[in-house]
Amino acid sequence: MKAEIISVGTELLLGTTINSDAADVALLLSEYGINVYWQTVVGDNPGRVMEAVRRAKGRADIIITTGGLGPTCDDLTKNAIAEAFSLPLVLNAEEERHLRELWRERHYTSLEITPNNLQQVMLPEGSEPLRNDWGTAPGCVLRAEGVMVIMLPGPPREIRPMLEHRVRPILASLSDGVIASHTIHFFGIGESEMEYKLRGYMNSLTNPTLAPYAKNAECLVRVTASAPGPDEAEAMMAPVIERVRGLFGDLAYGMDTPGLAEFTTKLMLEKGVTLATAESCTGGELAKSVTDVPGASAALKGGVVVYTNEAKARLLGVPAGLIEEKGAVSYEVAVELARRVRELMGSDFGVGITGLAGPDGDGVHEVGTVFVSLADKDRVWVREKQLARRGRAQVRLYACQHAFDMLRRRIQGLDMEAAADI
Amino acid sequence: MKAEIISVGTELLLGTTINSDAADVALLLSEYGINVYWQTVVGDNPGRVMEAVRRAKGRADIIITTGGLGPTCDDLTKNAIAEAFSLPLVLNAEEERHLRELWRERHYTSLEITPNNLQQVMLPEGSEPLRNDWGTAPGCVLRAEGVMVIMLPGPPREIRPMLEHRVRPILASLSDGVIASHTIHFFGIGESEMEYKLRGYMNSLTNPTLAPYAKNAECLVRVTASAPGPDEAEAMMAPVIERVRGLFGDLAYGMDTPGLAEFTTKLMLEKGVTLATAESCTGGELAKSVTDVPGASAALKGGVVVYTNEAKARLLGVPAGLIEEKGAVSYEVAVELARRVRELMGSDFGVGITGLAGPDGDGVHEVGTVFVSLADKDRVWVREKQLARRGRAQVRLYACQHAFDMLRRRIQGLDMEAAADI
Repeated sequence: MKAEIISVGTELLLGTTINSDAADVALLLSEYGINVYWQTVVGDNPGRVMEAVRRAKGRADIIITTGGLGPTCDDLTKNAIAEAFSLPLVLNAEEERHLRELWRERHYTSLEITPNNLQQVMLPEGSEPLRNDWGTAPGCVLRAEGVMVIMLPGPPREIRPMLEHRVRPILASLSDGVIASHTIHFFGIGESEMEYKLRGYMNSLTNPTLAPYAKNAECLVRVTASAPGPDEAEAMMAPVIERVRGLFGDLAYGMDTPGLAEFTTKLMLEKGVTLATAESCTGGELAKSVTDVPGASAALKGGVVVYTNEAKARLLGVPAGLIEEKGAVSYEVAVELARRVRELMGSDFGVGITGLAGPDGDGVHEVGTVFVSLADKDRVWVREKQLARRGRAQVRLYACQHAFDMLRRRIQGLDMEAAADI
Repeated sequence: MKAEIISVGTELLLGTTINSDAADVALLLSEYGINVYWQTVVGDNPGRVMEAVRRAKGRADIIITTGGLGPTCDDLTKNAIAEAFSLPLVLNAEEERHLRELWRERHYTSLEITPNNLQQVMLPEGSEPLRNDWGTAPGCVLRAEGVMVIMLPGPPREIRPMLEHRVRPILASLSDGVIASHTIHFFGIGESEMEYKLRGYMNSLTNPTLAPYAKNAECLVRVTASAPGPDEAEAMMAPVIERVRGLFGDLAYGMDTPGLAEFTTKLMLEKGVTLATAESCTGGELAKSVTDVPGASAALKGGVVVYTNEAKARLLGVPAGLIEEKGAVSYEVAVELARRVRELMGSDFGVGITGLAGPDGDGVHEVGTVFVSLADKDRVWVREKQLARRGRAQVRLYACQHAFDMLRRRIQGLDMEAAADI
């Protein structure tokens, strides 16, 4: 089966937006073994959208479009596709009702819905709507002339859940068997090193397959099996997963998780342990990552953002003399942050982060120097990291990831230093 | 002048690599007013690369290809282009000499250069090489059949400097004018409402043009002018910018900025005023957004994450009785958060955020209810928002955006409620 991806949006042609949607669509298609030979990007221009669709429908079984479904006059993907298939656009009554409800809920009660908003619920005749619970413009599926056209919204926070919850079931129903996959997640090893270690084994496999990825300062390997049924797929994957986990020991922290932050937060909730955070250079990012998980209030007793020396003293009582003697970015101050925030909040664990995220230094430490500390009632662990050359946002992200790694190692009773090299 | 971008690489079709190269190329082209109507992505397949090039040369003056210049058997862009123009590939002696030098420098002295490496210096006959000082594969420019084809390497760390140092001078020599643009940023109005208000004016313009976008709970309008020189472009844009800003009053908060968080943080730094934050449902996101800006320590005196009632009491001394009586998500508690954190940290302003980000409620308030408060030394302002149906991450983002809006309005002495409806 062959698919084509057509991305619609002048912002893509101008380069002001990077086309991450096409990659998201392609990843999902490849999970189902559907080949993509062409991707096309066109602007908000009906003639060129139509031309792209006409060409694609001559060579693909599935066309997936991204973008151009919204309420503005630039949003003309559905019009162009209707025209390419010589179909009228018709108002979908159910989606209209839903849109009007959304409008009311957003406190526009006093304001009549504007006509351009209704354009979003006009679909090419014969299409089935795909409800968009993450935005206002529904997607839709058109089956015509032997081709399936799936139209999806452009904003990443809408298309990602739409792919998962609306498109995945459609693709799954097309395939004869099932494609199942698991992800194995790593912290403490770089992607190229992981890939190097895995390469021989990876190349020896055809089904299941292995594919390595890197994101957000961690790595993952996707194991994918194609089988007649889900049980067979699981049975095929089990020994592969065991072998991969065996190769990396406890650098593999978990499976099928969005990432180390969520994994560790859920681990805390599961074990009923609590945390308090004291953040300097990460400025709240660690606490934010914990509270990204619904229900995190049971794990996070509280946090302080002590970006300045004054805040370190006022909120936690870190002695000004210590900061003066050792510097705000120091092993000793990191120890105090974790210890004192834990005591202040009465939590099981305290985490402290202090460092130089850059771009400017303090005249003593190199930019990228970070101390991450973890305290329990008996002792304090500290990791000193040199994360220079990664840029401010990455230094902050790595610092948070190290904090989560130390936490999960402490909770699981593992070697505290095994992942400290990354 | 029209250009097309052809990206070559199977990893792009599989979705394991996001096509940032195309955006980088597009940004440079748009700086020189060169229109891009099509971008195509094909895999490492000579037939499809050739087909893409043949189609592009019929409709564009410039074709820029990315990827497929390296030493492996997948690297076949130059072969396919040579064939599309019926030209042989010929060895470029100067690039060969350079490559052999590189090879020696990289400590392969003992090893004879492998034949596949020489494939990198085979160029379509008549091409000029573009020296690659950031990798091994040179790019090249072919002028044939009235079209200019610029072939560039795929790795971002190579193509970015190649664009800047090799391609920019070529484009500059072609162009007879400049394209300049500004962005006007809004908070407090939805994209569809903004576009509805702008549509008539937008459609009446041809140069400059207006284009609306939405991202991160705010909107922007891009104004773009094509003119003989930068001064003329600015003169053409000035009245358009004035008119757009006039239409929306102080909902337009700034220009040419990454967003409201950075704008407001820089405004605080500029005015020398300081902030302290007390976050419940946003769990550190507000402080994190402030500290995304380098140098923010001068503006953020400190912050607390008081996700739990216990933390509200311990860190800020919010009376347990008040929380019990009014609820943690209440106008009254919001007032206390902003007032108390300001006093505790001795800052000019205090911000408090308390709400129900979801997915679970508290049995009293609807999920999505948020109170955002701002205290100065004399008074406290509170916005109550109902942000249901936006999802947990969006509720948190909107809450932070409202906090920044209140701050910038207070600092600039504007109406505190004008943007409260979003």
